Formats: sequence, structure tokens, C-alpha cells
Amino acid sequence: MRLATVEGPTGPRVVAERDGQWISLPDADARLPSSLKAILAAWHDVRPEVEEAVARGIPLSEPPKRWYAPIPDPQKIICIGLNYADHAAETGASIPEEPVVFCKLAPTVVGHKEAIRLPHASEQVDYEAELVVVIGKGGKHIRREEAWQHVGGLTCGHDVSARDWQKGKPGGQWLLGKSFDTFAPMGPVVVTADEFTPPVELDIQMTVSGEVLQASNTRQLIFSIEHLIAYLSTVTTLQPGDVLFTGTPPGVGMARKPPRFLKPGDTAQVTIERIGTLENPVISEPSP
Amino acid sequence: MRLATVEGPTGPRVVAERDGQWISLPDADARLPSSLKAILAAWHDVRPEVEEAVARGIPLSEPPKRWYAPIPDPQKIICIGLNYADHAAETGASIPEEPVVFCKLAPTVVGHKEAIRLPHASEQVDYEAELVVVIGKGGKHIRREEAWQHVGGLTCGHDVSARDWQKGKPGGQWLLGKSFDTFAPMGPVVVTADEFTPPVELDIQMTVSGEVLQASNTRQLIFSIEHLIAYLSTVTTLQPGDVLFTGTPPGVGMARKPPRFLKPGDTAQVTIERIGTLENPVISEPSP
Repeated sequence: MRLATVEGPTGPRVVAERDGQWISLPDADARLPSSLKAILAAWHDVRPEVEEAVARGIPLSEPPKRWYAPIPDPQKIICIGLNYADHAAETGASIPEEPVVFCKLAPTVVGHKEAIRLPHASEQVDYEAELVVVIGKGGKHIRREEAWQHVGGLTCGHDVSARDWQKGKPGGQWLLGKSFDTFAPMGPVVVTADEFTPPVELDIQMTVSGEVLQASNTRQLIFSIEHLIAYLSTVTTLQPGDVLFTGTPPGVGMARKPPRFLKPGDTAQVTIERIGTLENPVISEPSP
Repeated sequence: MRLATVEGPTGPRVVAERDGQWISLPDADARLPSSLKAILAAWHDVRPEVEEAVARGIPLSEPPKRWYAPIPDPQKIICIGLNYADHAAETGASIPEEPVVFCKLAPTVVGHKEAIRLPHASEQVDYEAELVVVIGKGGKHIRREEAWQHVGGLTCGHDVSARDWQKGKPGGQWLLGKSFDTFAPMGPVVVTADEFTPPVELDIQMTVSGEVLQASNTRQLIFSIEHLIAYLSTVTTLQPGDVLFTGTPPGVGMARKPPRFLKPGDTAQVTIERIGTLENPVISEPSP
């Protein structure tokens, strides 16, 4: 099923797609959990009721005016670096023996069509198309063989990265370069995990202002979704709605000659097969 | 004022200290915001009502049974590395020209007296005593001269660190080594910012099982609280209740000869002048 979080009359509401139209779940069945996080956490139990609501619901009379990130308030935004062999090569890094893990701060989250704001503090804001896993059922010490059961669904993500902050600061920590406000667009939809059979092999592409700059397939992932979930859950308790950026394929702007960074007026599109296209305009940060 | 979040009959509740006793704020004045995060966000407005509630409230008949972290659910747990000149020297690092910034994941948060669980996956879990700033009023692009106005209060923090994960993994990212569950004890109380005049000069000490292993003063901070708030807010929108671990003084376990790591049965105490003592027992993680 294809689910999204969009603007409703009283705030964010969850909608589901039926034949290209959108059904408001709270309007179709007020007993359903009100957030997508809660729906995915209980998916095995609520799926029959959601399907029934979608079958009988009345479609919205017009497309949603505003798309939130599918999970507007994830407890964790965990990201994997260098997880495509070719991308590791283009950055000059060797293929890591364990996942390289970092994270983004909460105000990075924006939805489909929302603006990526280029900060005045960076000259090198780069694009990265990524497949994003949304955790459904949480857990700790999840075994790899059971890891797929914890996937709520998949969505498109854009791991926007200020390279001068990611790589040029003392201590070598990537957090701030990855965490300027608006640096984690996600969406527009989450496709539930039951629509896929692992290993997930999906074409993934980044297009900036009409030019295809990354094109690969998620079969190139060095560490699989199940591997990542098992690995991360040895450290942290995964919660429903946690999001996991799984890494980016080759073609990032800093590796190009000359480099190609994002600039005001650009439009960035992340397209993933069977999920959709996440599109975000790029603007300059308004002056403080 | 000294404020804390403790177990109440229906979940966490905010209490304030009066002459060594604890007044339940929701019982004294049900109109007050219910979380410490919300109280600190609006401190300048609600302080008179809180003071009145504390003056007329009836103290709890017995001490709180459970202490939560003062902010049990911070949106961000931001940490500064190498922020004491002597600690930078003992780790072999040079004094950084800009703050070294990393963060911890949400399930690290525990309160006073709660156990630090040593994970089976690490052999080198180290202690770090830290002064923690709790953000009151949020903001972006905060000027250094105005930064202190955004401090809600100060508390004690323990930046527990699995050195083998912090330093021995591909990519050099500290996130996971700092993010095992229970690795961010905080508390027991927040002392509101109006009780201090910056620069804050407070003795800080780490005692493990009776042995003083770190002893310094926050006047040794390389980057001041105001500097850090201004710097971080160029990147991210600070929110009420965000917590900022300001770095640790010399004496950490990995720099000792022989190294002194935490072991089951230890008791770790972070004591900061005018704030109090955060005490946490150390246990082995239960088998999964």
C-alpha cells in the first residue's frame, strides 16, 4: 500500500492511494491510529482495517496541497555512508568492513515539494539520492533473519550534504555538514514492506534541474537493509518511525570535474522504481 | 530554582525544590505547563506562577522514588568533543579551532540512579563527566551576545563512551560509540539559568566507585556556552529542551595507564558545584 502524510483541515493526516486518488484514513475510519508512525508500528494488526477504509473511502476532491515527510517527527534519522561500492571508490574511500554510521538532527526533515535552503555558511552543498527505510515494529538485538519484519516501508530520501562542513572541520565528524535545516527531504509516499521481497532491487536516480546525475540500483548496496537493521540494533533500540538512509550511489557533485554543487533555482528529484519521485526546489536561506 | 522530572501517580511530573523538600508543580498549580521542557521554554513568563506554586505547595511526603532525566525526551542530544584544553592533550588531539560536534541517539537518555548498561559488544566503556546545558527558548542564528538568554538551565551529564566503537570503526564517526542505550545519564536537577552569571565557573568531578578520576572547573572550557549556542544555531534550529553536553575534562579511563574502563558493579558519580550529584550504577547488559 502507498501511504503519505499530507496537510489536513486540522494538521497532518494520513492518506492512502487508490487508483491514483487519495483517501483520507481518519475520515474513512476514525478508529485508525492517527499517525503514519503508529500505523506502521501496528501494520500487521491494522492492515485489514486500513484496506477496508481505503476500499470504501471517498477520494479527496483535489490533490494534497502540502506533503509532509511521511514521518514528520522521526525519533532517529540514521544514515549510512559509503554503502555503494562505486560511490566509495569515487570519494577515494575503500570499501568499509562495517557500515559507516552517522545521523542528522531533527530540523533537517522536510517533505515533497518543500524547499532545500542553502545556508550562507556553506559553499559546497551536494546532493545524494537514497533509499530510505522506515522502521515499523521497533526492537533491540534484532537478528538478521528477522530484520525484514521490522521494516514498515520504503520511501525516497535526499541526504543533502554541506561538504565543506562534513569534511573540513576539526574532529572529522559529519553531523553538522549533514544537519543544516531542510537537509533531509523525504517522501512523497511510503510503500509498505509487504509490497517488496528482499533483497530489494530498485532503480534509483538523482536528477538536478533536468540532468541525470546519479543512476544506479539498490542491488549495489554493500550492506543490505537486513544487515543494517541487525547491526544498528546491537547499539540502539529501534523505534517505530525511525528512518534509515541507506547510502548513495556514484555521481555526487563533489566527485565531478568540475564539481557540481546545488545552487539557488535548482530542482532536485530523487526517483526510485516502484516508489515515486521526491522533488524539492533549491533556494538560498533567507537572511537572518 | 531547582527543578526535576520524577515519577508521579500518572507518569512523569515536574517538581521544584524548597528547603530540601520537593513540591509537585501540577498539584500546586494545574495551569502550569506539564513538562519541564515547556516550563523552561516559557520561563520568563511562567516564573512568577512557578514561584508562587512552590511557595504555597505541600511538599511530597517522601523523596521521589524514580528520577527521570530532567528532559526525558530531548529532540536533540548534541555533544562537544575535546572542549577542555587538558583533555584534548591527554587524547593526543590538538586544541580544535572550531568545536568538534557529534550527537547521541534518543535511547541513550536515562535519569539519576538508573543503570548504565555495559553492552556485550564493547570491551572499552569509558566515563566522561560533563556540564549539560538545557535550551529554554529555541532559535536559529542566535547571536553570541544573546545566547545566554536561550539557556533554560544547567544539569549534570555523563557522556558514556564505548571507545572501541568510537575510534575503531570505519569512517571515524563517533555516533555509535556514544549511542548505546543508557549512555547519556542526566540529572538529577536542572538549575535555572537565572541562578548563574556567565561565564559559568563550576567545579566538576567524576567519581567511580569512590575514586575521584576527573576534577576540573568549567572555566577551562575552550568554547564557552554562548559560543557553542551561537555556533550550533548557524546550522540547526535549537528547540526548547535540546540538551548540549559541553565536553569533558582530563582523566578519562582510556588515557590512564593502565586504562580504567567501567565494569559491572561500579557506581559513577558526576558532581557539579551548585547543581548536585548524578549517580548511576553500572551493570552488564542483560542477555538478549
